[in-house]
Amino acid sequence: MEYVLPGDIENRSFEIIESELKREIPDEIKPIVIRVIHTTADFDFAENLKFSEGAVEKALEAIKNGVTFVTDTNMAKAGINKKLLEKHGCKAVCFMADEDVAKTASQRGITRAAASAEKAAELKEPVIYAVGNAPTALVRICELSAEGKISPKLVIGAPVGFVNVIQSKEMLTQTRIPYIAAMGRKGGSTVAAAICNALLKMAL
Amino acid sequence: MEYVLPGDIENRSFEIIESELKREIPDEIKPIVIRVIHTTADFDFAENLKFSEGAVEKALEAIKNGVTFVTDTNMAKAGINKKLLEKHGCKAVCFMADEDVAKTASQRGITRAAASAEKAAELKEPVIYAVGNAPTALVRICELSAEGKISPKLVIGAPVGFVNVIQSKEMLTQTRIPYIAAMGRKGGSTVAAAICNALLKMAL
Repeated sequence: MEYVLPGDIENRSFEIIESELKREIPDEIKPIVIRVIHTTADFDFAENLKFSEGAVEKALEAIKNGVTFVTDTNMAKAGINKKLLEKHGCKAVCFMADEDVAKTASQRGITRAAASAEKAAELKEPVIYAVGNAPTALVRICELSAEGKISPKLVIGAPVGFVNVIQSKEMLTQTRIPYIAAMGRKGGSTVAAAICNALLKMAL
Repeated sequence: MEYVLPGDIENRSFEIIESELKREIPDEIKPIVIRVIHTTADFDFAENLKFSEGAVEKALEAIKNGVTFVTDTNMAKAGINKKLLEKHGCKAVCFMADEDVAKTASQRGITRAAASAEKAAELKEPVIYAVGNAPTALVRICELSAEGKISPKLVIGAPVGFVNVIQSKEMLTQTRIPYIAAMGRKGGSTVAAAICNALLKMAL
């Protein structure tokens, strides 16, 4: 085993990732790409992550002004660094386990994720959506934005899986919403949370 | 987009995964392998997952008798299906954010994950460890087992990353502990939780 002091493990990991990256990553997005690879040990994300123009800058500004992160899983919410949220006056919420969301979903034959996105649309404060699981949440967010009902500061589009996942991300990239997306099938709650945490660190 | 009813998305995903799998997976472990691929969209796990002999059977028995899942992240804990835990009379705990763990870690120059593993060793009830993040937790669990201080019903070894991750999993496979491990660098909280959930479903 390699002996690395507890406080140095992350830095050592980042060094290894940088040394194995096969191409130059622009400075503006590098901390995000590296943190996602750190979280997944999957270098596919060096190719998969796609950023709308100025997305990072807009996200950092929103964070500095105190933004609410809306996640589509309690896992992603649990993964966002609470100390960093607090430092910026930000918070993280997830409506997936709410009873009214389950009721709406069942009554209308939609997913709880889509119903959660609708509940989040009622928030009055500035919002960053972090979608790490459900393409149906991402689709509903794109629709609500097209209907002029929401104007998120950023949408992190990182649902994972096999049914309409690729399509939902392509839909996102065709909107006017500032986005960071993990294209293709891959993504996940850990990926969504890693992108949030990278942005929260960059905004310090 | 493909129109799939909300309740059918998971089944449809599993069908797609089965159709794309390049080799036959033994029935005993298939629900676990497929659920991990469902969670990650990463077919590498069809090759990476390694099971000690009888691990699944032992885990199912422990779950049926009511076992405590100890996770090394609050994300993994959040990802374990609460309804299934309740049905089996099981529970999930995570000590990572506990103040005494932070104190022990800092005083002794070890990671919080290793200190958490030590705290978990004091539990009197039967335990399944689910490690989805920290190799230092997995190493400490192997050491505690070698010292005769713990005898877990199962250890899920799925830490992710670049520093001592591969080594920690190899260490696990050389113990007498029943294990399910994601070999190599890949793993994560979502992978650890997916393995727990697959087992909880299989035990129904």
